[in-house]
Amino acid sequence: MTGNETQPDETMPETADPLSAVELRAALAAAVGPAPEARAAAEARNAQLTKPPGALGRLEDVALWIAEWQGTDRPALDRVQVVLFAGNHGVAARGVSAFPPEVTAQMVANFAHGGAAINQLAGAFGARLDVTSFDLDRPTADFTEAPAMDADRFARALGTGWAAVAEDTQLLITGEMGIGNTTAAAAVACGLFGGLPEDWVGRGTGVTDTGLLLKAQVVGEGLDVHRAALGDPLEVLRCLGGLELAAMAGAIARARVLGIPVLLDGFICCAAAAVLEKAVPGALAHARAGHVSAEAAHGKLLAALGLDPLLSLGLRLGEGSGAAAALGVVKAAVACHSGMATFAEAGVAGG
Amino acid sequence: MTGNETQPDETMPETADPLSAVELRAALAAAVGPAPEARAAAEARNAQLTKPPGALGRLEDVALWIAEWQGTDRPALDRVQVVLFAGNHGVAARGVSAFPPEVTAQMVANFAHGGAAINQLAGAFGARLDVTSFDLDRPTADFTEAPAMDADRFARALGTGWAAVAEDTQLLITGEMGIGNTTAAAAVACGLFGGLPEDWVGRGTGVTDTGLLLKAQVVGEGLDVHRAALGDPLEVLRCLGGLELAAMAGAIARARVLGIPVLLDGFICCAAAAVLEKAVPGALAHARAGHVSAEAAHGKLLAALGLDPLLSLGLRLGEGSGAAAALGVVKAAVACHSGMATFAEAGVAGG
Repeated sequence: MTGNETQPDETMPETADPLSAVELRAALAAAVGPAPEARAAAEARNAQLTKPPGALGRLEDVALWIAEWQGTDRPALDRVQVVLFAGNHGVAARGVSAFPPEVTAQMVANFAHGGAAINQLAGAFGARLDVTSFDLDRPTADFTEAPAMDADRFARALGTGWAAVAEDTQLLITGEMGIGNTTAAAAVACGLFGGLPEDWVGRGTGVTDTGLLLKAQVVGEGLDVHRAALGDPLEVLRCLGGLELAAMAGAIARARVLGIPVLLDGFICCAAAAVLEKAVPGALAHARAGHVSAEAAHGKLLAALGLDPLLSLGLRLGEGSGAAAALGVVKAAVACHSGMATFAEAGVAGG
Repeated sequence: MTGNETQPDETMPETADPLSAVELRAALAAAVGPAPEARAAAEARNAQLTKPPGALGRLEDVALWIAEWQGTDRPALDRVQVVLFAGNHGVAARGVSAFPPEVTAQMVANFAHGGAAINQLAGAFGARLDVTSFDLDRPTADFTEAPAMDADRFARALGTGWAAVAEDTQLLITGEMGIGNTTAAAAVACGLFGGLPEDWVGRGTGVTDTGLLLKAQVVGEGLDVHRAALGDPLEVLRCLGGLELAAMAGAIARARVLGIPVLLDGFICCAAAAVLEKAVPGALAHARAGHVSAEAAHGKLLAALGLDPLLSLGLRLGEGSGAAAALGVVKAAVACHSGMATFAEAGVAGG
């Protein structure tokens, strides 16, 4: 290792206070957005920076997004937090992944020792990394047989995510690790947005054509079993999702309540986030898409959420890695917006 | 300013030893590529990192590119250099820019004081920034009337770029500033690749529809005047380009000779780079495209060079800013490749 990676201080246990779906929904419904004055002030500053109007393209939009949620015309990114959640999935027993469930625990150990991609990415951009591992010897139920989580376990997972967000975080990324979780995410997305299972499944860590057909079949079985849940997005998440998906939803919701901007990662992260937007429209007003991944349905999911990704580099790793890779773009945007001289300061014509 | 920007130590004068077009071509023809063993070693390492094969997508390609040119399976980016050249253009008198020529000098002062976008971007990613300003009171000749540079001035500009590259640089970016230089770049691109002037001109810093028509007319006049030069790419650069374009070509060529990878910026940078590839095929083997800009013909120019940009965020500022914004992606790629644990080191199944 290079010594530049970020190692988490510790992996946190599954001990947070529970947060019920009712409480989560109420908190989101009561959340306020940024003050219009913050956006206006940031736009006024942007118009005075020493560049032709609009010449920084989407970097300008990114800086204005961060500025308005931070409530300042000179935003900063000194405290970026990556919260990563790991959980195992009963549905993995159906053979839907190219890797065995033991890999989840092995990767959690790798996170703790600073050896995974997300450690290097967080380190490269000075982000804090917090890893929470749910009890990996206690996977969720196989959703083709029963709800993935009962109400109590679901509330503890939501609460774990809610509690993981530091109040002084300036930008949040949520990541995940869980063998089988592209299948759970596909089931959640199909449950939320409809369509056929084969529209939402992808190769995940690298399943074969046969594996892809199996994933679609398993998702279809899950949707059939939980047909009664499909009208309620949070019930979709409880019945078809997983602990790390629920925790990501809890963290993204907490950021919304705190007014912290969120940079979304790949398909699994976006499936968890989509639950919030479906439950309370506007719940993702603080979120932007870090990247579009190689997972087949991620682009479709982003389009359904009205999100335009910053990067399109064919990543499909999870861990928050795509959003963390996009941190460079967000840091570039904020550095320009907050650091550049104005026309008046620099004595440049054209202001 | 935030205090994170990079300020150049000084702006260097126009005093480098000249480098003739003949010498430049000979140096490029003699340049060697990376040893195949370096690529093989980096690929072997990549295959052992704790991720599903290919899961980091284009980040893997980027890391392998840097690794092979650095000649190591654990590349580093501690010494990234941005060399920025500023020059004025006689053709600006034709009214082809939305800004007056005085802005070139004003922006050079802004670079020196750390107030421009490139200062912030270099600072955000820890890159060194070296700014060289040619004599701004002595623009090139209006290429619709005479060659932009005579042989001596052209050789001094090539030599200035050649001399600007630090031998221990691990990744080079070339940037430019020069009111009127999208017109010069369009003339160079049209001279190299053919087609109509209107295929190659764009709005630059923001000209109107009328300005766009004028740019195409001016480029067409230049091509008519220098028809005899079009068979020789370096003559195209001398007759239709500019001091900062020639210096970028010299710097990119020097990097090729030294085996330093280059991250290309926007339309003007790529027009200068294209001269080298047209003069000596393979001259850009060390180069990748940092971004595709909003300048209309940049995508077409990248396609002609066979380059796939890392970012597509609608930038159109120059200064090296698009490539510098893409530095985050390159840093992310190298951090993962050089820092991640292998399956064996981490005890993860699947290696």
